[in-house]
Amino acid sequence: MPSFAIGVDLGGTNLRIAAIDENGKQLETITTSTEVKRGRDSVIESMCRDILALKGKYAAQYDFAGSGIGVPGIIDMETGTVVWSPNLLDWRNYPVREEIESRLNAPVILENDANVAALGEKWLGAGKEYASMCMITLGTGVGGGVILDGRVWHGLNGMAGELGHITAFPDGPPCGCTSHGCLEQYASATAVKRMALGAIASGDAPELSRAMKANPEFSAKIVYQMAMEGDVAAQKIFKTVGEALGIVIGGLVNLLNLPAYVIGGGMAAGWDAFGPSMFAEINKRSYVFRNTADGEPKKRTVITRALLGGDAGLFGAAHLALQARV
Amino acid sequence: MPSFAIGVDLGGTNLRIAAIDENGKQLETITTSTEVKRGRDSVIESMCRDILALKGKYAAQYDFAGSGIGVPGIIDMETGTVVWSPNLLDWRNYPVREEIESRLNAPVILENDANVAALGEKWLGAGKEYASMCMITLGTGVGGGVILDGRVWHGLNGMAGELGHITAFPDGPPCGCTSHGCLEQYASATAVKRMALGAIASGDAPELSRAMKANPEFSAKIVYQMAMEGDVAAQKIFKTVGEALGIVIGGLVNLLNLPAYVIGGGMAAGWDAFGPSMFAEINKRSYVFRNTADGEPKKRTVITRALLGGDAGLFGAAHLALQARV
Repeated sequence: MPSFAIGVDLGGTNLRIAAIDENGKQLETITTSTEVKRGRDSVIESMCRDILALKGKYAAQYDFAGSGIGVPGIIDMETGTVVWSPNLLDWRNYPVREEIESRLNAPVILENDANVAALGEKWLGAGKEYASMCMITLGTGVGGGVILDGRVWHGLNGMAGELGHITAFPDGPPCGCTSHGCLEQYASATAVKRMALGAIASGDAPELSRAMKANPEFSAKIVYQMAMEGDVAAQKIFKTVGEALGIVIGGLVNLLNLPAYVIGGGMAAGWDAFGPSMFAEINKRSYVFRNTADGEPKKRTVITRALLGGDAGLFGAAHLALQARV
Repeated sequence: MPSFAIGVDLGGTNLRIAAIDENGKQLETITTSTEVKRGRDSVIESMCRDILALKGKYAAQYDFAGSGIGVPGIIDMETGTVVWSPNLLDWRNYPVREEIESRLNAPVILENDANVAALGEKWLGAGKEYASMCMITLGTGVGGGVILDGRVWHGLNGMAGELGHITAFPDGPPCGCTSHGCLEQYASATAVKRMALGAIASGDAPELSRAMKANPEFSAKIVYQMAMEGDVAAQKIFKTVGEALGIVIGGLVNLLNLPAYVIGGGMAAGWDAFGPSMFAEINKRSYVFRNTADGEPKKRTVITRALLGGDAGLFGAAHLALQARV
């Protein structure tokens, strides 16, 4: 009997729960809103109800491997607790895994959301061909996950993969983490908007200024569209996005010499605008990259876009449970 | 019968060959000069003669596991060839491992010299207590090695650990690698001397200027001594060394969350001069470090000096052969 697992993506807005078989086929997905305000117990109750419903529905045709849950925050993998999560404050120091396991009567694995997204891309997406890879997720913030020999690299405290806070420009804008010039201050949607507002304020970006006044929801996406339409100020912003990414990715290539670096998240849609300066910078910063960019296919460093979009986390979470079984 | 292996450190100046037992006891070490000018065949001939002599001497009491050879350059681990080495140009694309194995009639492993030094510190030195660690070697240049779960992390092409070319300050001095502001441009002995000569030329370093005129062998060591004696210009240089190290190590901590980062090489002797600004910078740049610096002992990020000095490579090379056996 083939196996299946349930992957959960516990986002700040949506709670998605998917039954996924061992070949990566998405059997069924339930999407509800995450009622964080109702508190931890309510979210866990609702999540378990849906997991049990899916488990019951497919248990006749498939062998159930367990559940993986992607959580935005720092997870203690040993104890199965949430050490810190900006959105789930009352989950802290609560035995989440234990609680869910006892309700499901099946194994549960909690994992950081950026790590499950990386694992999903490794399993079925842009990292499929490679044993190891690093994923960089560009969203409101910048996160990441490192997969080595097919498994999430957690490091000592489960905090590995904090790519958003690697320094790109040491004297850059202050970051909430206390540092300056973190990658997140250049390559997140938040940063693009900040840079655009800065350019508007300096008077150097008349077109961006007009767009902002015309559109109450002025966003990174609009800046991207204007860059693609040829606006110089918008192009300059995306050049900076690419430079910061290139400096940091160049360092990763020099350090780890992985076969693949995968860029995902909403901001990856800006690839055409930031890609050229990113590749120019990686080329300059990493002779490991230069020496491997044109090698034979199996020896080449690949830097590419993620393929699974918002589903990467669901797949990765399910894969965790399937991996644990083997 | 206990095992032993032979570790070889093929340096630009000295060729050292040591018989080391499975507990890390250095049974005997032969040091000769590396006669690179006589060509590859002569160096291999001399190395094999000494290895065979040591092998013969200890084979009665110990089981021989093989030889590990640390080579300054990029090694293709699969084929056992030297892809590139600045000092051993005629070794390129020559089947070194095969040649040595046939002469010794025993297994041989070639490995990059920074990687064997890291492995040595992991086995018997500052990294002994940790499953994973990163070593940063500060010498004429800056090199490094990454040990994950007890083994050297090679990456796709054996080029992992190129820490010297991770960017510290993007707009810094040009580097031979084509980039600007590489760690090597700040934290190597060469860089300290360059910064001192720059300070002298600018007229801001009268004491350094006097020291340079008084000493034909003006070096990083003298700059260090003057920093420790309170010379402001010399202190400023070592502050920069520490800042560059802190920016790069902070990034490593955020990326990999390893338990230990070990700083070795001749320039590590300047620890007292660069340490304070290095730790200040890591504290600022890495909330992973801040959150783990004071944790319980087994959860703490440790940044420390190497312990084995110039012997790290010998131990690491021997350990490679002992590891391969198991």
